[in-house]
Amino acid sequence: VTREEKILMCVNGYFGETALKAARTHKRNIVLLEKDYGEAITPEDVEKALKENEDVRAAFVVYNETSTAVMNPLRELCKVFKEHDLLVMVDAISIFGGAEINMDEWGIDLCVGYASKALGGMPGICPMGISKRLWKILDERTAEPDAWYLDFRTWKKSIEEMSAWGHPHPSSMPTHTVIALHKALKRVIDEGLENVYKRHRVFSAAFRNAVKAMNLQLVAPEEYASPTITAIRLPEGIPKKLIDGMLDNFNIMISGGLGKLAGKIVRVGHMGFTARRDHISRTITALGYTLKELGFNVSVDAALKAFYDSI
Amino acid sequence: VTREEKILMCVNGYFGETALKAARTHKRNIVLLEKDYGEAITPEDVEKALKENEDVRAAFVVYNETSTAVMNPLRELCKVFKEHDLLVMVDAISIFGGAEINMDEWGIDLCVGYASKALGGMPGICPMGISKRLWKILDERTAEPDAWYLDFRTWKKSIEEMSAWGHPHPSSMPTHTVIALHKALKRVIDEGLENVYKRHRVFSAAFRNAVKAMNLQLVAPEEYASPTITAIRLPEGIPKKLIDGMLDNFNIMISGGLGKLAGKIVRVGHMGFTARRDHISRTITALGYTLKELGFNVSVDAALKAFYDSI
Repeated sequence: VTREEKILMCVNGYFGETALKAARTHKRNIVLLEKDYGEAITPEDVEKALKENEDVRAAFVVYNETSTAVMNPLRELCKVFKEHDLLVMVDAISIFGGAEINMDEWGIDLCVGYASKALGGMPGICPMGISKRLWKILDERTAEPDAWYLDFRTWKKSIEEMSAWGHPHPSSMPTHTVIALHKALKRVIDEGLENVYKRHRVFSAAFRNAVKAMNLQLVAPEEYASPTITAIRLPEGIPKKLIDGMLDNFNIMISGGLGKLAGKIVRVGHMGFTARRDHISRTITALGYTLKELGFNVSVDAALKAFYDSI
Repeated sequence: VTREEKILMCVNGYFGETALKAARTHKRNIVLLEKDYGEAITPEDVEKALKENEDVRAAFVVYNETSTAVMNPLRELCKVFKEHDLLVMVDAISIFGGAEINMDEWGIDLCVGYASKALGGMPGICPMGISKRLWKILDERTAEPDAWYLDFRTWKKSIEEMSAWGHPHPSSMPTHTVIALHKALKRVIDEGLENVYKRHRVFSAAFRNAVKAMNLQLVAPEEYASPTITAIRLPEGIPKKLIDGMLDNFNIMISGGLGKLAGKIVRVGHMGFTARRDHISRTITALGYTLKELGFNVSVDAALKAFYDSI
């Protein structure tokens, strides 16, 4: 979008806020749809925002808000975006390869993934999908670009002019990371996309059941719970001790909160190859045991039973 | 520099032109010092340009113009920049680790290297040096930034606020590439910087002597010849055949020309671990043999003798 055209920025967590910062730096004409951390962006929210701003041209949303473990209902949001003929930009970084994204059918124009999150590949490369409609808009654009390196047209020019000599990009690429991405994609396709998505759904739900069996409070409502990450509310001071304890005693790394939830939660990833029985069961054991040591009255047995009963 | 302050852009090849494109996209106030492909930027050129533009605030130069194999005399250029109290920005990508760069002594404020060129590491990471003076200017700047992700202050904020939880950067990093960079740096330091620089100087000069013994014409004048790459002028049609022949028959990859020299030259890299006797001697053999097959009257014997006599 140009600086004149309005863009609807859907923000309900730290990574939405990050995108908002970037959009503000680039002086975009922003309509802000903001929900609290832990809440989802709903089709009704979008309807309301668009009714109040009929001249919106584009929309941005984070599919999987990693800071809160809320998965926004992207397919339903896209239906509303489509009705209003919006250009749709999606941050799918932490869910790319872990849940369905159908750019063509849902009407997504720009989709950003990542190699080492739900796909289970190596970090260092950011696969992106760009719709034909968006390429056409970029080709026909007369507004001056804001950036050189981050302008898609710089990359398109390289693809068109430099492919012949085996260098379809404007700068040196980490070849090994491209090869690793190819391998990760192949592995996911070999397992079958539907199987991979189902594995993430089943094991994330089972993990949440284990967490609930430990009487812990989840950040995301079950309806919008992410299949790749779970966020757990804990009393002040506990998150740091829990993270350190699990790393020191079990060699399992979990994360703390970001933005408004800093110091208030822990986040446990279960994506790619970690969305499996062995990884999650030992995470449950470590989580329960470390919480016990921190004075919580939890039953590791009950948590593991809830997990195994759910898979 | 802000959009008001003048920046001297020194351009004498494809990579200087690329930086110029980026500076123009970002609407900088540019004073252009342009020399032809194959020529060096000299202190006299800079003196003249600064005399005509006394209000220049900053300068940019490519240390090693990879497209022409010209190494600009950076130390001498920096003396002139320093006399005029300029902010100095250097693209040292293809020579970082292969020749001396003394940021503090020479007065360089921003220096951009690369992990996999002369350093011989893995691609995918771009080490940068930023002077205290530049950080101070950035801290005190009131002009609004043009970018979010590429604003150094975004990175500084991450270093300051996110280091405590082990994440001093605004996005996911390719951890393995960072570790590989550390290893490459250690290897270079173990060999000794002076030894590494000397190795590049000796073997590049010896390679040029071999090329001259094949009666081929070099693009860069000997005085400004790069220690990491050599460019050779060839009749039309020959570069592509030579590149293909060396790859097909000897598994050695050399490159063609860029920008104004596209189709007119070949470029042979000799940097990092390839700046050694074994790599260069077999490159000379392959180069000479493939040229012979293309109808050139060259003596591989004479070329190898010139090489061995020079090391």
